[in-house]
Amino acid sequence: MKKYLKIISLGGFGRVTKNMFVYETDKDIIIVDCGVGFPEEEMLGVDLVIPDITYLKDKKDKIRAIFLSHGHDDHVGALPYILPQLSTKLPVFAPRWAKALAENKLSEFGIFPNIEEIDEGKRVKVGDFSLEFVKVTHSIPDTLHLAIETPVGLIYHAADFKLDLNPVMGKPTNQELVRQIGKRGVLCLLSDCLRSENPGFTPPEVKLEEVFEQEITDCEGKFIVTTMSSNISRLKQAIDVSLRHGRKIILVGRSIEKNIEIATKLKYISYPKEAFIPKKLINKYPPRAVTLIVAGSQGQLGSGMDRMVAGEIKDIKIKPGDKVVFSTDYIPGNETAIYNMIDNLYRLGAEVAYSDIRSDIHVSGHGSQGDLGKLMEMINPKYLIPIGGNYRHMVAYKKLAIKNGFKTDQVLIQDNGKVIEFNESGLSETKERVEIGQVMVDALGVGDVGNVVLRDRRILSEEGIVVAILPVNQSKMTLEGEPEIVSRGFVYIKENLELLAEAKRGIEGTLKEHQQRGRLDTRLVREVVQDYLEKFFFNKTGRRPMVLVVIVEV
Amino acid sequence: MKKYLKIISLGGFGRVTKNMFVYETDKDIIIVDCGVGFPEEEMLGVDLVIPDITYLKDKKDKIRAIFLSHGHDDHVGALPYILPQLSTKLPVFAPRWAKALAENKLSEFGIFPNIEEIDEGKRVKVGDFSLEFVKVTHSIPDTLHLAIETPVGLIYHAADFKLDLNPVMGKPTNQELVRQIGKRGVLCLLSDCLRSENPGFTPPEVKLEEVFEQEITDCEGKFIVTTMSSNISRLKQAIDVSLRHGRKIILVGRSIEKNIEIATKLKYISYPKEAFIPKKLINKYPPRAVTLIVAGSQGQLGSGMDRMVAGEIKDIKIKPGDKVVFSTDYIPGNETAIYNMIDNLYRLGAEVAYSDIRSDIHVSGHGSQGDLGKLMEMINPKYLIPIGGNYRHMVAYKKLAIKNGFKTDQVLIQDNGKVIEFNESGLSETKERVEIGQVMVDALGVGDVGNVVLRDRRILSEEGIVVAILPVNQSKMTLEGEPEIVSRGFVYIKENLELLAEAKRGIEGTLKEHQQRGRLDTRLVREVVQDYLEKFFFNKTGRRPMVLVVIVEV
Repeated sequence: MKKYLKIISLGGFGRVTKNMFVYETDKDIIIVDCGVGFPEEEMLGVDLVIPDITYLKDKKDKIRAIFLSHGHDDHVGALPYILPQLSTKLPVFAPRWAKALAENKLSEFGIFPNIEEIDEGKRVKVGDFSLEFVKVTHSIPDTLHLAIETPVGLIYHAADFKLDLNPVMGKPTNQELVRQIGKRGVLCLLSDCLRSENPGFTPPEVKLEEVFEQEITDCEGKFIVTTMSSNISRLKQAIDVSLRHGRKIILVGRSIEKNIEIATKLKYISYPKEAFIPKKLINKYPPRAVTLIVAGSQGQLGSGMDRMVAGEIKDIKIKPGDKVVFSTDYIPGNETAIYNMIDNLYRLGAEVAYSDIRSDIHVSGHGSQGDLGKLMEMINPKYLIPIGGNYRHMVAYKKLAIKNGFKTDQVLIQDNGKVIEFNESGLSETKERVEIGQVMVDALGVGDVGNVVLRDRRILSEEGIVVAILPVNQSKMTLEGEPEIVSRGFVYIKENLELLAEAKRGIEGTLKEHQQRGRLDTRLVREVVQDYLEKFFFNKTGRRPMVLVVIVEV
Repeated sequence: MKKYLKIISLGGFGRVTKNMFVYETDKDIIIVDCGVGFPEEEMLGVDLVIPDITYLKDKKDKIRAIFLSHGHDDHVGALPYILPQLSTKLPVFAPRWAKALAENKLSEFGIFPNIEEIDEGKRVKVGDFSLEFVKVTHSIPDTLHLAIETPVGLIYHAADFKLDLNPVMGKPTNQELVRQIGKRGVLCLLSDCLRSENPGFTPPEVKLEEVFEQEITDCEGKFIVTTMSSNISRLKQAIDVSLRHGRKIILVGRSIEKNIEIATKLKYISYPKEAFIPKKLINKYPPRAVTLIVAGSQGQLGSGMDRMVAGEIKDIKIKPGDKVVFSTDYIPGNETAIYNMIDNLYRLGAEVAYSDIRSDIHVSGHGSQGDLGKLMEMINPKYLIPIGGNYRHMVAYKKLAIKNGFKTDQVLIQDNGKVIEFNESGLSETKERVEIGQVMVDALGVGDVGNVVLRDRRILSEEGIVVAILPVNQSKMTLEGEPEIVSRGFVYIKENLELLAEAKRGIEGTLKEHQQRGRLDTRLVREVVQDYLEKFFFNKTGRRPMVLVVIVEV
């Protein structure tokens, strides 16, 4: 049998979130990352979207291990759903901080796998694959790139990263090591492409300390910072600056509290106990002696920031003199929620610093064209696959690669479950595709919400529902008493009693009319009434509520 | 009686859209603008939001006229709903292009008011008010500012504008005229503040011609431009550049076709007939001889661009070599739809130019800090009220005014229906507030969708509905046969038959149990079953579908 390597993205290519990559040879499979995605707008009521592992269902005994590149939810968040479906005994490898976050999340689901720590310098051999790791910089500690030796060549898997030459935590990426890997001859570079539209290099994290320093200096009230809860180095910067200004730290929001707890335990940060005070003691201190680190930088409903703005957190009131710093990107789709939050903070009299009025209030964790181009150059691969971005980012990455001297057919833009296959002579011209569905998580249900349910939810959400209950004489198929009509989400019921009364009279008339034409059965009664009601309501209101006709035979 | 002037925003302050201002003295009222707003995310199924005119209900005979500042929908779009409620005989004054757009829109509703044209140089006296007009520049032709002489002083109403020194159509703002008005002593300036976060001056429209020229030069296929359909000068630039490059023009989308038709009739533009070709002739020309001007720059479902991308427009296929130019801002909330469109255009092989990769592909019609500051300086009012922006823009405007030498209490930031009242001695300390509700338009219904309906729609959209029908013996209050359960938008029904069967058995058990405890009536039966089902489904699925229990007495 000819040797081959298949690369398949089970999260789909061309989506920013739910990263999950399969590397498959004839004997073995390893998985890189296992992330969740945000539901799209039309996925009403859906909490999360996870990768579709249908492809793996009959290949479970080929799977050797899962490797996690870093601890962001779009790289580890689907583990609680996916791992039990594969095997909770499956070896999982993760860098230190991702291991801590994944273990914490899995424990909430009652899953306690054995996650083995990986780091630069370590080598892992599983089946056909032999892996080394390169520590890179990103907006979360302990992010790794994976150099994967496979039977057909060396793969460099560069999940989210930027080349931060002066990171707040840890060391800068060892570019010499990257170059050495490049010199061994890399078959394919899979690279983060999220900021491939942006020229130059992404600024270093260290800049933020200066920004926080400037913002805190003229703040006479509470200093309030919100950012991604997993960005420990950013939290550290806000805390460091605050302590220098003689402020106590108060944590608001479960994710912030949890992450600071884990980071302290694992010694990513180390502060004297008295640096922090509990929320309830806030009013023992003057506002200018307090900094709040708050979850909810994306405007999330129910987050610490949301509840604080709504005045729902005991003892904490936002007041004139306070200053709120949104040290964050707006994830597309969240803009309105974030802007509403900013407006409401202003209404409470606070000062607000956010990226529209201060563009350096946040720096991305993703490399720009400079960072991405530099990695291409150091790795100098035969093929490049942009990952971790939308389709337009993949196109921008391709243009960047061409500008950097690669040829058009060296850049593989993948989409819709296309399988990329390499064999000993290079890229294989396979037409194989994997059907990648949307696996939705809604409360306790994984995958039990599908297109039919979503279509119904959409109609219900826009037009409401009308339920008509008809007591029908079993033998004669005539109405035995008045039909009952109930509606929800359709019109104000009290003000439209006449409309409903007219509908009832119409049902009776319609049935009589049909009865004169010939014998009815239950199915026919349901059909003619449904048909009548749909037309009636559309004529009267211009709306098309979902109409349910229930026949009770008496 | 003391003379007074009340200024009330019926669209609410602090929202970008649905502009409608009331100027009221003891005898007379005039209205400035009458716009629609986009529904907010939680307004499920709602098409439009219009101003709440409850305040005017008992003051109809005081209303003398409506003045429109310009033709954008957020300034004129609510006329078809509001005018009939006031009086279709009410005098309406509008600049030429707004008049044409408003008449076109109103005619679709069968309303044919007499709209009188206003322009710079004209004076209108209605009741206590005497008005002059200043022609300003914006992203639509014929935009006016209003200088309103009132019994307590002169008001300068500066709706949307920028100071474009070299506009594509018409003349630049006559700053000498503005200064003269300022010199007469202005009591209050109401000013656009939408871009008050942005430093400098907003670039002139004329820049776009250069940009289109650059983009068309290397376009070997169809050149496709999308922008706001009402921005006639932008459309003209795209057409001019295209004709110079020997291309024929094809219009795609109803709003584009309509606006070009009206603009041609009113001689805003004038092209030989043969400049345009109908859609169906597209394939008679090589792609590089064609430019498409397409509606749908905000990613709207069902728009020309949306249908074109979906391949639903006969004869028009997007192909490699084509280039699509998004000459537009992303209105907050539309980002995901626009990005999906861009991704899909790339998938079809087109080139796409959009503001993330080319920031000068669009210029705003709203003035930045430079423009806004210049107007403050020229008018030099006693008081300033920022309008036409969100709360954060009003705050930024206030900061700008202070930077420009005004005092904190000269800038009135208004919100939530607060009435601003001036009397002969200046600002009056009124605490009066007008209750401003959200009037929602859903298909034919205006105002018949309210909070209860929206709350139901939200639950329905996220959790679905379960309807349980219980045939109950009238006298004994026992089940007379099996309960029936139907659900929509909840779970896959086929795969959850057992769940529903279990629920039915549970209903029977619950009722028996309660019956042993004492006599039930219809209300109690409904309550205990509803209670049981809500808990049952939450325990089983983690979801809280809306539960409707219908009792059929037999």
